[in-house]
Amino acid sequence: MTLPALSAVSELVQALGDDRTLTDPDRIRDFCHDEHSYVTPGAPCAVVVARTAADVQSALRWAAANRVPVIPRGAGTGIVGGTATIDGCLVISVARMTAIKELSPQDELAVVEPGVVNADLDRAARAHGLMYAPDPSSYASCTIGGNLATNAGGLRCVKYGVTRDSVLGLEAVLANGELIKTGRRTVKGVTGYDLTGLLVGSEGTLGIITSATLRLRPAPKHPPVTVAAEFANVIDAAEAVWAIVRASVGPSLLELMDRTTLQALDDWRHIGLDPKTNAMLLCQADGPDAAAAAQVMADCCTDNRATVVAVSDDEAEAAQLLDVRRMAFTAIERIGACLIEDVCVPRSKLPDMFAAVERIAAAHDLTVPTVAHAGDGNLHPVFVFDRGLDEIPSAVWDAAEEVFRAALDLGGTLTGEHGVGTLKRHWLNAELGDATMAAQLAIKNALDPLGIMNPGKAI
Amino acid sequence: MTLPALSAVSELVQALGDDRTLTDPDRIRDFCHDEHSYVTPGAPCAVVVARTAADVQSALRWAAANRVPVIPRGAGTGIVGGTATIDGCLVISVARMTAIKELSPQDELAVVEPGVVNADLDRAARAHGLMYAPDPSSYASCTIGGNLATNAGGLRCVKYGVTRDSVLGLEAVLANGELIKTGRRTVKGVTGYDLTGLLVGSEGTLGIITSATLRLRPAPKHPPVTVAAEFANVIDAAEAVWAIVRASVGPSLLELMDRTTLQALDDWRHIGLDPKTNAMLLCQADGPDAAAAAQVMADCCTDNRATVVAVSDDEAEAAQLLDVRRMAFTAIERIGACLIEDVCVPRSKLPDMFAAVERIAAAHDLTVPTVAHAGDGNLHPVFVFDRGLDEIPSAVWDAAEEVFRAALDLGGTLTGEHGVGTLKRHWLNAELGDATMAAQLAIKNALDPLGIMNPGKAI
Repeated sequence: MTLPALSAVSELVQALGDDRTLTDPDRIRDFCHDEHSYVTPGAPCAVVVARTAADVQSALRWAAANRVPVIPRGAGTGIVGGTATIDGCLVISVARMTAIKELSPQDELAVVEPGVVNADLDRAARAHGLMYAPDPSSYASCTIGGNLATNAGGLRCVKYGVTRDSVLGLEAVLANGELIKTGRRTVKGVTGYDLTGLLVGSEGTLGIITSATLRLRPAPKHPPVTVAAEFANVIDAAEAVWAIVRASVGPSLLELMDRTTLQALDDWRHIGLDPKTNAMLLCQADGPDAAAAAQVMADCCTDNRATVVAVSDDEAEAAQLLDVRRMAFTAIERIGACLIEDVCVPRSKLPDMFAAVERIAAAHDLTVPTVAHAGDGNLHPVFVFDRGLDEIPSAVWDAAEEVFRAALDLGGTLTGEHGVGTLKRHWLNAELGDATMAAQLAIKNALDPLGIMNPGKAI
Repeated sequence: MTLPALSAVSELVQALGDDRTLTDPDRIRDFCHDEHSYVTPGAPCAVVVARTAADVQSALRWAAANRVPVIPRGAGTGIVGGTATIDGCLVISVARMTAIKELSPQDELAVVEPGVVNADLDRAARAHGLMYAPDPSSYASCTIGGNLATNAGGLRCVKYGVTRDSVLGLEAVLANGELIKTGRRTVKGVTGYDLTGLLVGSEGTLGIITSATLRLRPAPKHPPVTVAAEFANVIDAAEAVWAIVRASVGPSLLELMDRTTLQALDDWRHIGLDPKTNAMLLCQADGPDAAAAAQVMADCCTDNRATVVAVSDDEAEAAQLLDVRRMAFTAIERIGACLIEDVCVPRSKLPDMFAAVERIAAAHDLTVPTVAHAGDGNLHPVFVFDRGLDEIPSAVWDAAEEVFRAALDLGGTLTGEHGVGTLKRHWLNAELGDATMAAQLAIKNALDPLGIMNPGKAI
């Protein structure tokens, strides 16, 4: 694609107004990347800071007319380069569309704009005894639009499902500037194809979501009961997870941290780590039988050689433990530069996958702290390398590729919740195969025939 | 489209073999319709009774080469004319692909062919302490392929979700004969677009599903506790439903039958109906707190003027009550010919929707027994008319249209779980609007450029 003429950019500014368009390179810089910093961003021709769906429509109509590639973005907390810019592109930010337009306790739903921060929606729902269940680790800063674009997971999804499971309907602007409405306000419905599910997880390559009707759920009525268990061996911890899954007690949280992760947390926050502890499991139950369920989970840990098992219904203590877990990535980033993997395997293969990560890390002499949404079989092995390098070292790429291949061999997938972005695109075909890739591209071409929507991402 | 030449049909028979192709009009007749009998079927050129995905591929390649429209079918238990044939078409039946290829208690999933009967899969899962949750009323005869094609609901979906919520991945043959694999074996994953969700509910217009990886869930560990409540007024019963939804006790079943339905059941099965009873609510809870939850539901009924409220943990008694509920449509069909509606409204609007059905039935002087998956806001008003008519009377169509408009005005949808088929297609645009219809058709054209997949259905 060629760069748009300066006169065309002026037209855009004129159409949307000075307050909604940025062209000053200094002000644009912050809109060029997400948290993954190893993609070199290109220079956009402009940034549209949309306030309404009509703004998004105007911007996309202009982009289509001028054949300008469009990079949609929210808060920019993604970690796979999904919002990295290319030269001459138009960035459309929906981060300022922050209205909770409706919150209906009667029908247990909210209608929100895409710039609403995840935790803000959850807080608003709690005021009515409800909750917004999907809770990525970045929930305090990430926005619903980005959650939808990546079909984000989180800590609670072991019980309550991922983002897609909480979406009833969407309003989105397609590449041609048309506004479509998908889905419904009802809890079920089968009119037409499931465009809602298709848009969720499409990483801005099919359209820009301007409103979402989201399902809220009753907040748990009792405080959760929490189990914290320590293990001398990460494989033992993974075996305990699988035992818990088989026990069918419906954990509301099931998180695993390995030794390197715990060490990073201890170095930073002094969590009092026992030198013999090489893995920690955090489990929670929040149902009416939480105490009994927690005891079953504690027994599973004991049966799988846990060295310490503590059960508590103290909410402050539980909140503190979860805060530690949510700080894991920040702690790891203190060690060095990071490439975060996101493989997901059938839960019975969790011990095998942890063993594979250990083996691959050792073979490449790499430090690979690993955090897992273990109850979902979703591992985040973090490949740590020297800061200040211009590129990710080839040994890291090689090791990451081996981790991905191991996940695939175990019946797993490339990405559980972070998305494909630019980072994982070259592995996509290996998972999907030619025929499925062709079907995916046919859909992409049908909805974005000019190929202007977030090119080079997701598929 | 033109009819295929006889020589072309011979080629098909030769390619697939005599045992997998039918051309005798007498043997073909049973493959031309579903349970909705007011669509006049056309005469197919042949029926392929597929045994393998390769059979489906061969048949679709032949159909594409000869531009022959294809009507996929399973057990034919649908009720919206989704499998009605047209002249010269090829029927592809997957009802004989009946293998449960894998049932993994470890990963709580099954891999099945599309001809597996719903109840057979559930029974196989129960042997491992698991269940296949989606349970359409026709679960004893309907097949998984049809459940997937229509995104079927059922009695348990108030707690466990609809068919789509139990699908992890699919294998499907597209219109060009290519076999694609969608989704995964893991509980979450975001690689590529959600083609799984797109195929589910597409009523055979995008491809033919040849294998499905389905999520199984732990079967409830304790017998359910059942509440049966009678009301003098159907609106009171609907108000009780909404009170139960607001109480957030997680019913596993919440079904409502009105007076005309109960009368039909009593006339047939002598259920001992009280003359003053004008509606019955069946509620169940199956969690660890089932007794407490059932008591809350019973109280909601009492608070909303129930005349009789009975709570029981007797499994045989509960099974008997559910059997009565599942016989409702058969009982209604004894009164006359039927047009079954399937509107779904936000649950807070359930009393309004019942009032609208009563009003519309009275205005058109029609008998409209109504059964509802009330916990989902999903009503099945059944328009009964004289048997032996060639066509559905215009008063019935007019009343059905008014019911649909009333549902839409209440924020509802045309079809909760039965699908669009041929029956509801002329109302589709009113719900979706032009821009969304255009996006749907763009996807249809991308995956089926020749328009051979179940033409005239669903969209």
